[in-house]
Amino acid sequence: MKASIGPKTILYPAPALVVGTYDREGKPNVMTAAWGGICCSSPPCVTVSLRKATYTYDNIREQKAYTLSIPSEKYVRETDYFGMVSGKDEDKFSSTGFTPVRSELVNAPYVGEFPLVLECGLLHTFEIGLHTQFIGEILDVKADQDLLGTDGLPDMGKVKPVVFGPGVGSYFGIGDFLGDAFSIGKEIKSYPNR
Amino acid sequence: MKASIGPKTILYPAPALVVGTYDREGKPNVMTAAWGGICCSSPPCVTVSLRKATYTYDNIREQKAYTLSIPSEKYVRETDYFGMVSGKDEDKFSSTGFTPVRSELVNAPYVGEFPLVLECGLLHTFEIGLHTQFIGEILDVKADQDLLGTDGLPDMGKVKPVVFGPGVGSYFGIGDFLGDAFSIGKEIKSYPNR
Repeated sequence: MKASIGPKTILYPAPALVVGTYDREGKPNVMTAAWGGICCSSPPCVTVSLRKATYTYDNIREQKAYTLSIPSEKYVRETDYFGMVSGKDEDKFSSTGFTPVRSELVNAPYVGEFPLVLECGLLHTFEIGLHTQFIGEILDVKADQDLLGTDGLPDMGKVKPVVFGPGVGSYFGIGDFLGDAFSIGKEIKSYPNR
Repeated sequence: MKASIGPKTILYPAPALVVGTYDREGKPNVMTAAWGGICCSSPPCVTVSLRKATYTYDNIREQKAYTLSIPSEKYVRETDYFGMVSGKDEDKFSSTGFTPVRSELVNAPYVGEFPLVLECGLLHTFEIGLHTQFIGEILDVKADQDLLGTDGLPDMGKVKPVVFGPGVGSYFGIGDFLGDAFSIGKEIKSYPNR
């Protein structure tokens, strides 16, 4: 039996996206956002939605660029902290000791210690309501060398990203490997032989 | 040391969204999509990006409505199957034995067996490139009664959603609870006392 929860922003899983930007003085900032994800394969694009009140909102509008640093689970406390205090009040790189690395592709910094990074140039800005959606073209993905699989791609089981559950607001790690995409579905009896 | 992977659509975690629609004859269909997520808190909105070639694309354009059914990990095979075959060729409800439940709020069906459902009315359609982004207003969230926590919200640890890793294309379950959002960040030494 299903219960009606009401029109809430509950969707599992959500990512923990650490958005890196420079302000107009060139000071690096990061904030954590959960409203976002890949939105197009070609050009490769990713969205992140932010409130206008955030420091990062103005930075993206001005610099037309941002990075997304994906935290591993061991950095879940810092990830939460990045979403709780504003770059207007705090230098979040200084307070955590993380390293702001300047992207060579866009005018934005990323978190050197985090395992996976997307470097994005702003393509579109779309007003929805309380949140503004930024669509960025992914110009490069960078990952720690030791987290790559034999195919040269980052292995999610090694990256160990933080998984966010909106609504209740809880962080989880990733668990067991369940199977390969575009493969295990063939085990369904009626999968066509073609 | 970070390796450059190139401009790929790799972002961890991604969701496994099972998009439910009716075609013009009223036949229910589902497909799995990973390019989407929450994009606005007020109005509560969710995006899903689809290629024009999909059966679901035409259905959403015509019905102005869709649902997102979130699979639990025990349904990962069916979830993968839903992304591999087209509703043009297969009746995916029949072939899996799942129950198409008609939404009372929008003209779209959802998967009765899946633990969490979002019912969405189409608000915006946004052409990006290979993918078209649909932005839907969340009119209700429904969840299996026995998966609710004491706060009346669905517990992600009980829902056990599928976590998708694009790039390599792998499915994982969720793992250990890491902490509460807007809370564990206060453990950072420099968290301001205010």
